[in-house]
Amino acid sequence: MAAPAKLENLSLVVHGPGDLRLENYPVPEPGPNEVLLKMHSVGICGSDVHYWQHGRIGDFVVKKPMVLGHEASGTVVKIGNLVKHLKPGDRVAIEPGAPRETDEFCKIGRYNLSPSIFFCATPPDDGNLCRFYKHSADFCYKLPDSVTFEEGALIEPLSVGIHACRRGGVSLGNKVLVCGAGPVGIVTLLVAKAMGAAQVVVTDLSSSRLTKAKEVGADFVLQITKESPPEIASKVENLLGSKPDVTIECTGAEPSIQTGIYVTRSGGTLVIVGMGSEMATIPLMHAAVREVDIKGVFRYCNTWPMAISMLASKSLNVKPLVTHRFPLEKAVEAFETSKKGLGLKVMIKCDPNDQNP
Amino acid sequence: MAAPAKLENLSLVVHGPGDLRLENYPVPEPGPNEVLLKMHSVGICGSDVHYWQHGRIGDFVVKKPMVLGHEASGTVVKIGNLVKHLKPGDRVAIEPGAPRETDEFCKIGRYNLSPSIFFCATPPDDGNLCRFYKHSADFCYKLPDSVTFEEGALIEPLSVGIHACRRGGVSLGNKVLVCGAGPVGIVTLLVAKAMGAAQVVVTDLSSSRLTKAKEVGADFVLQITKESPPEIASKVENLLGSKPDVTIECTGAEPSIQTGIYVTRSGGTLVIVGMGSEMATIPLMHAAVREVDIKGVFRYCNTWPMAISMLASKSLNVKPLVTHRFPLEKAVEAFETSKKGLGLKVMIKCDPNDQNP
Amino acid sequence: MAAPAKLENLSLVVHGPGDLRLENYPVPEPGPNEVLLKMHSVGICGSDVHYWQHGRIGDFVVKKPMVLGHEASGTVVKIGNLVKHLKPGDRVAIEPGAPRETDEFCKIGRYNLSPSIFFCATPPDDGNLCRFYKHSADFCYKLPDSVTFEEGALIEPLSVGIHACRRGGVSLGNKVLVCGAGPVGIVTLLVAKAMGAAQVVVTDLSSSRLTKAKEVGADFVLQITKESPPEIASKVENLLGSKPDVTIECTGAEPSIQTGIYVTRSGGTLVIVGMGSEMATIPLMHAAVREVDIKGVFRYCNTWPMAISMLASKSLNVKPLVTHRFPLEKAVEAFETSKKGLGLKVMIKCDPNDQNP
Amino acid sequence: MAAPAKLENLSLVVHGPGDLRLENYPVPEPGPNEVLLKMHSVGICGSDVHYWQHGRIGDFVVKKPMVLGHEASGTVVKIGNLVKHLKPGDRVAIEPGAPRETDEFCKIGRYNLSPSIFFCATPPDDGNLCRFYKHSADFCYKLPDSVTFEEGALIEPLSVGIHACRRGGVSLGNKVLVCGAGPVGIVTLLVAKAMGAAQVVVTDLSSSRLTKAKEVGADFVLQITKESPPEIASKVENLLGSKPDVTIECTGAEPSIQTGIYVTRSGGTLVIVGMGSEMATIPLMHAAVREVDIKGVFRYCNTWPMAISMLASKSLNVKPLVTHRFPLEKAVEAFETSKKGLGLKVMIKCDPNDQNP
Repeated sequence: MAAPAKLENLSLVVHGPGDLRLENYPVPEPGPNEVLLKMHSVGICGSDVHYWQHGRIGDFVVKKPMVLGHEASGTVVKIGNLVKHLKPGDRVAIEPGAPRETDEFCKIGRYNLSPSIFFCATPPDDGNLCRFYKHSADFCYKLPDSVTFEEGALIEPLSVGIHACRRGGVSLGNKVLVCGAGPVGIVTLLVAKAMGAAQVVVTDLSSSRLTKAKEVGADFVLQITKESPPEIASKVENLLGSKPDVTIECTGAEPSIQTGIYVTRSGGTLVIVGMGSEMATIPLMHAAVREVDIKGVFRYCNTWPMAISMLASKSLNVKPLVTHRFPLEKAVEAFETSKKGLGLKVMIKCDPNDQNP
Repeated sequence: MAAPAKLENLSLVVHGPGDLRLENYPVPEPGPNEVLLKMHSVGICGSDVHYWQHGRIGDFVVKKPMVLGHEASGTVVKIGNLVKHLKPGDRVAIEPGAPRETDEFCKIGRYNLSPSIFFCATPPDDGNLCRFYKHSADFCYKLPDSVTFEEGALIEPLSVGIHACRRGGVSLGNKVLVCGAGPVGIVTLLVAKAMGAAQVVVTDLSSSRLTKAKEVGADFVLQITKESPPEIASKVENLLGSKPDVTIECTGAEPSIQTGIYVTRSGGTLVIVGMGSEMATIPLMHAAVREVDIKGVFRYCNTWPMAISMLASKSLNVKPLVTHRFPLEKAVEAFETSKKGLGLKVMIKCDPNDQNP
Repeated sequence: MAAPAKLENLSLVVHGPGDLRLENYPVPEPGPNEVLLKMHSVGICGSDVHYWQHGRIGDFVVKKPMVLGHEASGTVVKIGNLVKHLKPGDRVAIEPGAPRETDEFCKIGRYNLSPSIFFCATPPDDGNLCRFYKHSADFCYKLPDSVTFEEGALIEPLSVGIHACRRGGVSLGNKVLVCGAGPVGIVTLLVAKAMGAAQVVVTDLSSSRLTKAKEVGADFVLQITKESPPEIASKVENLLGSKPDVTIECTGAEPSIQTGIYVTRSGGTLVIVGMGSEMATIPLMHAAVREVDIKGVFRYCNTWPMAISMLASKSLNVKPLVTHRFPLEKAVEAFETSKKGLGLKVMIKCDPNDQNP
Repeated sequence: MAAPAKLENLSLVVHGPGDLRLENYPVPEPGPNEVLLKMHSVGICGSDVHYWQHGRIGDFVVKKPMVLGHEASGTVVKIGNLVKHLKPGDRVAIEPGAPRETDEFCKIGRYNLSPSIFFCATPPDDGNLCRFYKHSADFCYKLPDSVTFEEGALIEPLSVGIHACRRGGVSLGNKVLVCGAGPVGIVTLLVAKAMGAAQVVVTDLSSSRLTKAKEVGADFVLQITKESPPEIASKVENLLGSKPDVTIECTGAEPSIQTGIYVTRSGGTLVIVGMGSEMATIPLMHAAVREVDIKGVFRYCNTWPMAISMLASKSLNVKPLVTHRFPLEKAVEAFETSKKGLGLKVMIKCDPNDQNP
């Protein structure tokens, strides 16, 4: 009787570069501290597309078939015998990273740095672009009725922005530069404003992306063409009336990182969010002698509960981020759409009986 | 020719308990690092009223006639020979505390704690409820055209809220309790929301004050009647769905301080803003073993530039705070109004040729 | 054949107020993430004596027999099937608090505040004053050869000092006041000096305790007799040449807490370590307007690995703390000694074959 | 009658690259907030030698004759009329940077970043390698009798180490890597140990420098030869048993900066102290994804008072740093010695009547 069970769990699986398949997987059984979830909404991230196209990101290589997806929400359908804070029927957002051990990083509250962490859709760990998925109960967070499943799924990209703004120390009255108006830049902009930034400038090569940035709250946008980093820095400073306190670099492009160093106010912070090439040539001494701190981010930690609070109180509006929706059965088409860079966020609807936001 | 000059500077002077007089003072001459200001708008603070009524606040005693007023804005009319960043005609907001020496507190950025600081309308230092006033240029901040004089004057009470929220570490997604819905409680509420608090509860004895709090953005209000501190704590927790991360106590009442300890989440912070009696009986061990930090505030520091940024970008709306206006000639009537506790903020208009906001 | 096993695990058990018994318990079996330890050295803490004398501490009540002891070290004799970082034969120090779930406090690195934490010898959780004990492997830390078992056991009281000094923000060049020269005061003194405090004053009622404080490094000691808190504050200030940056109160006595408020420098921190009565009457406004933060401590977190580093590099010398030793068979006699307040730390030797330090 | 006055103030003046002269300057007159000092001991810094050799450091160019020297101590001989905390006869250490205005950086306690700051021997500001020198009284710190003039002068290089260790967040039990065993590396080592670092590794190309590092407290030294940055990182990790929490780079060499990124523990900090070429090629993404923060230092702030406390309490021993002494009359010879890199610190004795330490 294994076959029927298997048929129940349609999953989007990457087998290697360019090889993406919808397959039926068995419905998993939750362990003592886990919950089984009926998946509802899963956003497509650039990393999902990258694993599909290239079969790897840096040292993370798809060596065996892996289910994609890590921006997700769903409904608890079964709980492990030690789980106390959740029950079947609870709608939850899923934090995709769940530490496997309580190591030194977990103990100090920086569990995202734990080298043995489980993380959805990072090889070899399966993601949750499927019908049914099990996850550590401690990393599933109950959604109040006022927060939709899609908002729940969007907490993942939102968390990148939260972590970046926290690392940058964005605070009341700050002037902030966000380099890049893709999904990460946009959530960073939203979070910076929510944290009390007085003015945010967003830069990008694409005018359509900048239009979106302006729509969701950028005080200024600046389209980059052929300017040198010092020239861009000068333009940003003119827009703001002073250098930004914090720059959050979301493109990974070397000239943009250089700009971040030139433009950030002495004593401020440049946050590196975008991934670039391994080695970068930067005006390091220019940063050093002005005490501009350079800080990277690795995913995020401690963002879900407060993100839910923000969404529940309508303090943040992430709904405009979703520009496309596809049922799970059309996941490959959804990935093609995402690959083309159309819109901001493509959402895959995993529950055949509920395709609502 | 001294007489005409003297006649030009109408000033509101307290001579002792109950003794408030409008008098003509000489127009002062700015020193090398000072500017002379033509005053425009000056708000009345509870401390101004207290000096008038009681001739003292704690150890600060009015021993000689003192000009009142410290929530102020005006226009530069003359600059000292070393002043570079201001020129005649500049509209400025005045930070009333200006350190007299670069002591250990100034050097670490906590200049509000400098014991020798000059502070408007704190004996023996004169305030700026007058036509012309000179002040340290480094503590006058240019207002952009988009910020009104009254907004500029309101930066002073706003700064109390900013400093309190900073000391409390209010951050994105926080749940916050503000005890007291007077002017300080209201600005604290505004700032907490601007810093990204997800939900703010405001408590008070007065339903009309709570109505105002609700109008300007409180997520919940709670009218206190006869409840014990643990009972109030329980009600607040029910409203928020959990204990607040930060409690900001703006009443000085012992039961309210006690409530702050009971209600604040473990690891959170209770900020003491309201002034109460010298000795207080509190459940200190309850705070200690839950690592609820207790932090006071003394005025503020480093708030003006960012408050101006917030006002210029329309991220904060303080205009509803002003409920009454009087020309300087009617300052005594203005003080009577303020004493009665009517409205929130009484603004005195010092420029006979411009009584606009 | 259960009897022989039972006989192997001699344990010191408190049954209620005044009722302390040596009993044979079964040797426990470690779970998948646990290790079984052959205990070596266990220090007696004031709380152990208190449970024996009173059967409770605050809300923690001994309702069923409980093994005492939580300052401990031993040798791994068996490991659970998921344990990777330890192996039989490893000498370890035991962190007595091990969270039972990954809750909000654990996630932010303040796991000591987790309400469901397991903690040795806090009802209803058994301690480790016995021959064999099992514990969460993640909270057992391997000792290098250069660190003795007794040093390993002393990491627990040392951790109280580390956490207190960290919470107080003790830093290079600080002047520090430690109130109380009992075991906690002494370790706090040692840690404050190791963190770079320039000068530490220790106060106590007992001259013999102060002599010990002086021996282990206090720059000044001050014996308290009949002085009022402001008088003591004045004497401390005279000794140091200025107010202390940080005061760490380890007695719980109300006058000592009051002294801490009067004496601490503006902008400094008073750390509440000693447990006093539930309500305390303190000059709260005096602290508030000088921005003297009041912070409590609840046990500690994130102290074992760095304490081991300090002991391994001989940067800290805790050996003088041990003034008495008893074999486990004489544990009741050891407790009598501890109760009398003789010496500083009474160590119980649990391994009949190795009674060395 | 100007000539006699002029003869009184022998000064070491750089006129351009390679042009160093002993000249008689007039004795200056202190302003209202200044003190006139009879100089006693002034250390030679690498930057002094650099101005002599090259006439510039980066954008700071010697355009007119400039007195060298900024590591200094002396005796107050005259005070301005507003000076209260000092009197003639006071022995003081001189903080060479004294802000000219109370700007945004001063207000937040980071006055070292103030762009208009006066700084001894940075063009165009004169230093204090002379007989008589006037300085801002707020930046002269009284030395207790137990601290020698040379110790007072050494507070300046010591401050570089203090600021670097603070920026790196060196704390109790840390493992620290210091790259470079010149004077800056050595003081950084001393400070790191004083702050409670458990183990410090020092690297250098020169075995004699490493011998000195070992003598003054390095736990490990590592001589660099031909290894690649990853190889050096691996060696350091083997010495410490784990990656260092903090790396403080004092050489400015690109491979050493790269090593700092590879070797620092995830979540740790790399501090850039050494000055290198404007552009640097570094494995930035390697730092970013492991959240290794990169922080530079610009001089220092808020170090003198606590350094004096440390020296007064004998918690730090900087005396071994002085390896050579010359009277002011032989200052050129002293500079030749310093240029050759012999010893660590060359001290110039400015008081013809007291050449003691």
